[in-house]
Amino acid sequence: HLKATQHYCCLYFLFISGAGYHSESKAKEYKHVCKKACQRAVEKLNAGAPAVEAVTAALVELEDSPFTNAGMGSNLNLSGEIECDASIMDGKSLQYGAVGALSDIKNPVLVASRLLSEALKGKLSAGRVPPCFLVGRGAYHWALSHGIPSCPSDKMATKFSLSAYKRNRRKIELAEKVESDYVQAKKRRQSSENENGSGSLDTVGAVVVDQEGNVAAAVSSGGLAMKHPGRVGQAAHYGCGCWAENACNLNPYSTAVSTSGCGEHLIRTMLARECSASVQSEDAHQSLLDTMQNKFISSPFLASEDCVLGGVIVLRCCRCADAPPSTDLRALLVEFLWSHTTESMCVGYMSAQDGKAKTHISRLPPGAVAGQSLAIEGGVCRLGNPTD
Amino acid sequence: HLKATQHYCCLYFLFISGAGYHSESKAKEYKHVCKKACQRAVEKLNAGAPAVEAVTAALVELEDSPFTNAGMGSNLNLSGEIECDASIMDGKSLQYGAVGALSDIKNPVLVASRLLSEALKGKLSAGRVPPCFLVGRGAYHWALSHGIPSCPSDKMATKFSLSAYKRNRRKIELAEKVESDYVQAKKRRQSSENENGSGSLDTVGAVVVDQEGNVAAAVSSGGLAMKHPGRVGQAAHYGCGCWAENACNLNPYSTAVSTSGCGEHLIRTMLARECSASVQSEDAHQSLLDTMQNKFISSPFLASEDCVLGGVIVLRCCRCADAPPSTDLRALLVEFLWSHTTESMCVGYMSAQDGKAKTHISRLPPGAVAGQSLAIEGGVCRLGNPTD
Repeated sequence: HLKATQHYCCLYFLFISGAGYHSESKAKEYKHVCKKACQRAVEKLNAGAPAVEAVTAALVELEDSPFTNAGMGSNLNLSGEIECDASIMDGKSLQYGAVGALSDIKNPVLVASRLLSEALKGKLSAGRVPPCFLVGRGAYHWALSHGIPSCPSDKMATKFSLSAYKRNRRKIELAEKVESDYVQAKKRRQSSENENGSGSLDTVGAVVVDQEGNVAAAVSSGGLAMKHPGRVGQAAHYGCGCWAENACNLNPYSTAVSTSGCGEHLIRTMLARECSASVQSEDAHQSLLDTMQNKFISSPFLASEDCVLGGVIVLRCCRCADAPPSTDLRALLVEFLWSHTTESMCVGYMSAQDGKAKTHISRLPPGAVAGQSLAIEGGVCRLGNPTD
Repeated sequence: HLKATQHYCCLYFLFISGAGYHSESKAKEYKHVCKKACQRAVEKLNAGAPAVEAVTAALVELEDSPFTNAGMGSNLNLSGEIECDASIMDGKSLQYGAVGALSDIKNPVLVASRLLSEALKGKLSAGRVPPCFLVGRGAYHWALSHGIPSCPSDKMATKFSLSAYKRNRRKIELAEKVESDYVQAKKRRQSSENENGSGSLDTVGAVVVDQEGNVAAAVSSGGLAMKHPGRVGQAAHYGCGCWAENACNLNPYSTAVSTSGCGEHLIRTMLARECSASVQSEDAHQSLLDTMQNKFISSPFLASEDCVLGGVIVLRCCRCADAPPSTDLRALLVEFLWSHTTESMCVGYMSAQDGKAKTHISRLPPGAVAGQSLAIEGGVCRLGNPTD
């Protein structure tokens, strides 16, 4: 539990998920890049930037790391190409921007973020509605025409991602050879259900609350390894990859959520929005636990799945009731929670007065089965007035 | 109000929306294609096909019509290309398939439908998760590899869509010239807000309940005219374009919803899923009215929009309580509702014993302002046992 004396707070969470895909040494790298991302966003916040800008800065740092499955070093698809998904949501305006299956752009979150800020400017010429979601080559050309530079796909691949691709390629060829030799299509599919060999799920996400109490959330992903070209996952899907909503008449809390894991599971359960809605009830910990259990692991939308992989980071905050209500400078109470059904997840967080970020590798309890059990943890942070 | 004596029922709804874009003669064409679509799906249902197949058949017919903004005759984008969105949801398995920004395929709904049926078969080789959402060239190649033929884009354009494109092109050029000559970017955008010159919104959708009481929903759209290449609208967005959910422990009613209108508005309000959830309460008419008013027209997610354009068709059904509960053959009570904020909407519906479909052009009440007011109508249909 943290105690802070400054009026702003910034929390970052970086995911490592995907059973069996991170050694202790890899975890160290993740923690390091997570700290750097926190630092970068805190710099923005210290300079007075709004939540959306800070969360974008954090994601850029995460995308630039070759260790995450986002931007540089993203998983390769079945054709050996990199296609990225990313989205961002602003809790104040409730605007949203997303890109899907985007190639040749180093920082997909910059395109999502720019879509959001362009949409805030209102209609285009001749009364056209600005897009909130662009995919593929169209998204690429939009990015270029808005000053975002291109980056050749081969510069975004790493030694690690290329060798993983070759390994996966052989594994699929072998599996398909064995299958076509010995078993029927139907049977084959069932038999391979428990393999989980397709690569890492390590989507990155961040949630933030800024000096004025506005929340934002963002997420970025290279998608499942060996995915079909054109496949779009939860990171580009409204309500599924991230969610941010400032407090309003109906909602006592501002909330921000980001998700990671198997995109199809996260899409069909709309997990980001579900978690956001659930933590409007008083006991955030209990309601997030219930949501992860009943609306994710045991969701009727995933009834046919015996292994449901995902993780969420959730931030909620409200002005403290014990302070004079006359001012916007009342203390802010921030609760942050993380939960996952994957074997592990890496989180990092930082409030603006901290010298450096805290990081943590969360793991399932011993004996718990990934995809069927969950871990949940969190903290509370009271951010006082500047004059405290 | 309908009375039926057979054990199955099929309801189709075809949308005409977009203020000022359909003359009386065009409405006639819409009604005609709507009837044909109903007929086609009833043939499927009579042959024992499940809801998903019937709804797909209806959509194919709607896409093949040059008068709808889906498949053949779709709106052209800013580059003069056709890029389609479509999705389908099965209320029984809760599976979902979608394609976005798909070119050179005559019937996008067939690809969405095939994604759904492939996902039902379980994992791919080497344990890979099958995709539920594909976009762009990747979606196109997936379609070809699953036996769906390609169709050159220029065969999908019509005289009407080409001349609309040229007209829109000139309008944009003129608007941008005037704007760059006289006003600032910011001001220009506000000034053009009330023009609605960018083309028709006439997405098509259908909802159906089959002989076994399973529901399905589908939607298909060419998207906004002059949209940016790569823009994906609500028709490809989970929870936004269509929704179908069989009754279960938590939900007394089976529900199916399809939406039409301005994609960005329908995405940010997740209108299909919201409408589905709302009609689980007893008075479907009242709760749909409330939802359209509070979660669409006055939605906090669209606070900056003064003209919110959309339409929904909603079907809900349950087994009648007055029949012996021992059998699946209890009578089915079907309620169907439509509501829209556009100037008009065309709906059609048919239960399997009807010789032909009923069609109707619903219009806003005189004096009501499109985008700020709504119309809501509907009917009830009691489908008896085959032995009745």
